[in-house]
Amino acid sequence: MKRIIGIDPGLLHTGWSIIDIAGSTRKYVASGVILPPTKLPFEQRLAFIFNGIDELCKNFKPTECSIEVIFVNKNGKTTLLLGHARAAAITAVAINDIPVFEYEPNKVKKALTGMGHADKDQIYKMLSILLPTAHPKTPDESDAIAIALTHANTSRFDM
Amino acid sequence: MKRIIGIDPGLLHTGWSIIDIAGSTRKYVASGVILPPTKLPFEQRLAFIFNGIDELCKNFKPTECSIEVIFVNKNGKTTLLLGHARAAAITAVAINDIPVFEYEPNKVKKALTGMGHADKDQIYKMLSILLPTAHPKTPDESDAIAIALTHANTSRFDM
Repeated sequence: MKRIIGIDPGLLHTGWSIIDIAGSTRKYVASGVILPPTKLPFEQRLAFIFNGIDELCKNFKPTECSIEVIFVNKNGKTTLLLGHARAAAITAVAINDIPVFEYEPNKVKKALTGMGHADKDQIYKMLSILLPTAHPKTPDESDAIAIALTHANTSRFDM
Repeated sequence: MKRIIGIDPGLLHTGWSIIDIAGSTRKYVASGVILPPTKLPFEQRLAFIFNGIDELCKNFKPTECSIEVIFVNKNGKTTLLLGHARAAAITAVAINDIPVFEYEPNKVKKALTGMGHADKDQIYKMLSILLPTAHPKTPDESDAIAIALTHANTSRFDM
């Protein structure tokens, strides 16, 4: 059995999910959002994300981590800030000796719906079919579940 | 007395320095470079940088951290990778409850030489005058000393 932690990072809210996979079976375990208090200085937000993910790794003991690749687009400054949040999360996973797998956004869409250009609604519908016990309350939580499932589906095809 | 940790982050080599300041006196304490083994996967490089800075914080107990601001330039991908290394270092400082101060590159040049457009040679000459006992062996180490001194000079003027 593999236990995947999926992460959708952000300085404001970092979605996370835990999913178990055994062969073609997938089981939703937990999901949520890490919300650093907005009054915190920048470096303490990174520490908050780091501590949150570190605690999840210690509590749930995932064996693999799945996270989206990010690209610099027209708003370079925002992407760079997102990159810092992403790095704080990845670092927490790495100090727990959990390997990290990165997927491009269109791979996530394709792995879940079969289409690289699927919209959010189509992805959410697939999530509710694949993991009916998951009831994500925010887009960040849904995205974290989607990225974990992407790794589950991709590594299944690689076996 | 304040003890500053200066950091010049990078995925390949992360320069660091420790400098004590008391009034107008500055004392070089130590400096070096963190070199993650090149064979490590990306996430373990971040963990290596994080662990290195965390260890320095626990050994030297700096009271403040100084680091350069980075900007997205024409090579967005490289800047984004640098941002991840920078975030791993900042996160390590932050979990040790050390406040982080960020300076733009031209502020570093100006704080040390009086000129926002000083070249590397002029900066190195000022470093050897301001901290004659420091003998940095690499540019990363020099840059880490320069950023720590920038904070020392800037906070002196702010008093």
